[in-house]
Amino acid sequence: MKKQRGLLIVLSGPSGVGKGTVRKELFSQPDTNYEYSISMTTRNPREGEEDGVDYFFRTREEFESLIEQGGLLEHAEFVGNYYGTPLAYVHETLEAGRDVFLEIEVQGAAQIREKAPDALFIFLAPPSITELEQRLVGRGTETEDVIARRIATAREEVEMMSLYDYVVENDQVQNACDKINAIIVAEHCRRERVEKRYLSMLRGE
Amino acid sequence: MKKQRGLLIVLSGPSGVGKGTVRKELFSQPDTNYEYSISMTTRNPREGEEDGVDYFFRTREEFESLIEQGGLLEHAEFVGNYYGTPLAYVHETLEAGRDVFLEIEVQGAAQIREKAPDALFIFLAPPSITELEQRLVGRGTETEDVIARRIATAREEVEMMSLYDYVVENDQVQNACDKINAIIVAEHCRRERVEKRYLSMLRGE
Repeated sequence: MKKQRGLLIVLSGPSGVGKGTVRKELFSQPDTNYEYSISMTTRNPREGEEDGVDYFFRTREEFESLIEQGGLLEHAEFVGNYYGTPLAYVHETLEAGRDVFLEIEVQGAAQIREKAPDALFIFLAPPSITELEQRLVGRGTETEDVIARRIATAREEVEMMSLYDYVVENDQVQNACDKINAIIVAEHCRRERVEKRYLSMLRGE
Repeated sequence: MKKQRGLLIVLSGPSGVGKGTVRKELFSQPDTNYEYSISMTTRNPREGEEDGVDYFFRTREEFESLIEQGGLLEHAEFVGNYYGTPLAYVHETLEAGRDVFLEIEVQGAAQIREKAPDALFIFLAPPSITELEQRLVGRGTETEDVIARRIATAREEVEMMSLYDYVVENDQVQNACDKINAIIVAEHCRRERVEKRYLSMLRGE
């Protein structure tokens, strides 16, 4: 019988929203049963960062040669440094039936959406829906200018989130983690997935 | 600003799968924050059953008059008795922004699927995927007849589940409840719902 392929979970969102903090909290929980895919970068390690733990630190030459070989699931360049997701680890882990978790920038997420439409895309959003709602219906103490800027930011975020399956507001790290874990549990119960498993079992695969 | 409409949650599944037990366990948990819609029936109360708690007990005449008025979201007849879901309570509760939970038979669920495509449909399944998998790859101690019957049952269940969004195996009541709660949390994070809320807020609705 064929092993059920794991789920590719992509957490992304606007810069500064707290993706790294949420990811660290998720992986500090003892019952987390999905695997973290470590990113690769050409930037220098910061103090305390370890190769193979925080990132795979590689030279530009090594990174570019991996790009040419098609060895990255996604990659992007920021301020002169490459960041990317090594394909082999993701592929092998999924094939072994385990879920893989990526925490990446929105550009990378868009690349994966094209290559792996089956993946689960979670957008981490600032707690602006609730905040904005309160502020817009609030006591009118904000200047029009401040309100206009907030609405513009909210609009950009709504446009960004349109590629994602789920939106989690990062109001508190623990709340966000609980929602992400609920989403992963729910996604494993989606009828399409369960039905596929049933059918392949009935066919004796 | 318009209140976000609540979510209609429909739990159903094959007869005898344990829907009532799971529903009772869900509503015995103190942090359950969705409302139970009490069914209406023409059957006689069993010992210990209370009108307005377990069911709304009504005469055939009252029930049929409600059907004629379009006052039921779904209804069906079993062994000479009517069972149905009063529409008014469901509608008012959803409009007030609270989630409503129904535990009904598969025929009723099919009626709601047509009227309320936005609802969340959860199929409670016997733990047959896992069990069947183990048995089919097992030690070959079952007769061909027994295996054939199990496969036939599994096929019927796969066909039944095709109208549903999620499938939860009722291997253990607490596991099933945890999964159902995760599905409800996840569903509130679905991008379409959050995006709609964002957009209506930006339009100042």
